[in-house]
Amino acid sequence: MKSLAVLGSTGSIGRQTLDVVRGLKGRFRIFALAAGRNRTLLEDQVREFSPAQVWSGGESDYDYLRAALGPTGPQWAAMDEMAAHPEVDIVVVATTGRAGLLPTLAALQAGKVVALANKEVLVMAGHAITTAARQGGGELRPIDSEHSAIWQCLWGEEPASVVRLILTASGGAFRDRSLEELRRVTPEEALRHPTWQMGRKVTIDSATLLNKGLEAIEARWLFGVPFERIEVVMHRQSIVHSLVEFADGSIKAQLGMPDMRLPIQCALAYPERLPCPSVPRLDLVQVGALEFALPDLKRFPCLKLALEAGRRGGTYPAVLAAADEVAVEQFLAGRIGFTDIASVLDGALAAHRPAADDSLDAVLEADQWARAWAEDRIKAKA
Amino acid sequence: MKSLAVLGSTGSIGRQTLDVVRGLKGRFRIFALAAGRNRTLLEDQVREFSPAQVWSGGESDYDYLRAALGPTGPQWAAMDEMAAHPEVDIVVVATTGRAGLLPTLAALQAGKVVALANKEVLVMAGHAITTAARQGGGELRPIDSEHSAIWQCLWGEEPASVVRLILTASGGAFRDRSLEELRRVTPEEALRHPTWQMGRKVTIDSATLLNKGLEAIEARWLFGVPFERIEVVMHRQSIVHSLVEFADGSIKAQLGMPDMRLPIQCALAYPERLPCPSVPRLDLVQVGALEFALPDLKRFPCLKLALEAGRRGGTYPAVLAAADEVAVEQFLAGRIGFTDIASVLDGALAAHRPAADDSLDAVLEADQWARAWAEDRIKAKA
Repeated sequence: MKSLAVLGSTGSIGRQTLDVVRGLKGRFRIFALAAGRNRTLLEDQVREFSPAQVWSGGESDYDYLRAALGPTGPQWAAMDEMAAHPEVDIVVVATTGRAGLLPTLAALQAGKVVALANKEVLVMAGHAITTAARQGGGELRPIDSEHSAIWQCLWGEEPASVVRLILTASGGAFRDRSLEELRRVTPEEALRHPTWQMGRKVTIDSATLLNKGLEAIEARWLFGVPFERIEVVMHRQSIVHSLVEFADGSIKAQLGMPDMRLPIQCALAYPERLPCPSVPRLDLVQVGALEFALPDLKRFPCLKLALEAGRRGGTYPAVLAAADEVAVEQFLAGRIGFTDIASVLDGALAAHRPAADDSLDAVLEADQWARAWAEDRIKAKA
Repeated sequence: MKSLAVLGSTGSIGRQTLDVVRGLKGRFRIFALAAGRNRTLLEDQVREFSPAQVWSGGESDYDYLRAALGPTGPQWAAMDEMAAHPEVDIVVVATTGRAGLLPTLAALQAGKVVALANKEVLVMAGHAITTAARQGGGELRPIDSEHSAIWQCLWGEEPASVVRLILTASGGAFRDRSLEELRRVTPEEALRHPTWQMGRKVTIDSATLLNKGLEAIEARWLFGVPFERIEVVMHRQSIVHSLVEFADGSIKAQLGMPDMRLPIQCALAYPERLPCPSVPRLDLVQVGALEFALPDLKRFPCLKLALEAGRRGGTYPAVLAAADEVAVEQFLAGRIGFTDIASVLDGALAAHRPAADDSLDAVLEADQWARAWAEDRIKAKA
């Protein structure tokens, strides 16, 4: 039985991870749970899974949970402590934004398997993270459907024969809107994703297509493929989760129902493929057609900005991710419009003075700078 | 440098195999060439590749080639002799119909790698062939695009996690014709395949969809998957060459340009993936859409008959393949109509008394019986 630490257990990926653990009875035990703000759901999860350690982001949660769970409840521990705990086999990093960075580093340095759903971790600090994995003997497994697809397509293949990674993009909530219409969309509309059930931040990033740029940067680090060999193609059915092209012209694709429990289970159970009866079988005939098209970088400038940041490398991706966290928050709060997100990112990237290296310190400094810059810019325009 | 024996070197797959060998200069040498009837092309091939051994099917070819190539030319050898020759590493079986059976057995018993394009070999005698491979230490690698796709999708996967093989079918020359129109089609029309350049026999088998039934039976033996777990799906673009579904609901697909040189090279170069610059890159955006549909067994009864023969097993697949060889020959000669092919197969399968086992002897006897039965039946109706 493998022991899991689930960081971000009350978010969308966290809840689906626990669903997978429920479905695979007897294979996994929950050693630790960490959540951001939803203390009542965390309380329920603790009662159901009886973890040895727990952490919650809210300041008043400690007293609340202590009182609710009584003196025999779990031990309070920081996320990087649980991530590196000797009893933990797999750390599921399902936090969002910057929060997953230090626990991921700690887990990899301690030689753990990290099942990573938090895109920003590799986008910000890909160099530091992959170095930690190499030095500590840790292993990164993707949970994102696109990266899981690429990972699966690479099983049994020589890394040297990979010519291209092709990331598919559903196009998000606004794939059929004109630029003029995009200026007027509301947060409520942006949160309605056509094919995937996901968290709020990633759903907005899907609607701007920034998400796909972050995934391209993430793929570069996960699979060690030069950035210019990573392509994005629009695929509205969300059935082909991504593809890999090899030196002989052969392309492998991974297909499946758009349900995050599949890539989560794949990362947890690897190298086994276990049944997932709660997800219906994919019926290609019922799907009928799988369509592919080029992304429209005019309507979706966030993708263009992200690809540029990826090409530049260094601290640019950290600036992109940090400015986006601020901009999406402000859009969801109704303080800026949908198309203003790209303007904030564009401004931050243009104003950024790149550091000499992409060490963890440089990356964290760039992150701080970009957040402050984005907040000031939004305030100034308000 | 690997040594090849190419059986059926003047046919479509044989010529494309030599094209691949030309493209991969210095990696392969041609030790032996065997051909059916095209002695002038065989002569050209001998002059270009200087094989140590040669064989030709026509009775007068020996004297012709001897005279043409002079006393220093290659040694005359039978196909099963070259297939088992100690200097041969890989035997490419690109014959059609029954002709490849005994050389394939000889090669596998001698521990060779057999790159198999001749479908009927496994359809007729799958049990004997896989037994020979196990006992002799030989290895079967598929050349057919569909089986190559499945093979590639299985690299790095556990056989136990395979739930379903999904063979794709272009639908052949007549995929959009009505049953009424099918009664009047000519051999010339049937030989115009919409997406693949192939030999005459396999092009007609594509038009009747019998081909896909033969491939399902072949897949059962190549991959050791129960016949009822093999499905056929129509896919007119011939880009997704086939798919494998795994226990966790994940599906892997192999895609590529419809060019036989790709699966040929894959089988020869395995486990390496070498560039194939003569074939253009697959551009998914240019393809636009990949469509999938159920096969129409009413319009294409040959597929239904083949799937039934596959389910029955034993000597039924041998009867199917033998009756089809006769029927296709007679259709190409203008002696029977296109829809009569299915009637001949139906009649032969209904009249067949299955043998007690599927030993090589039983299979060869069923083959003889079915050929005679089909010829009599066509004569009687003429």
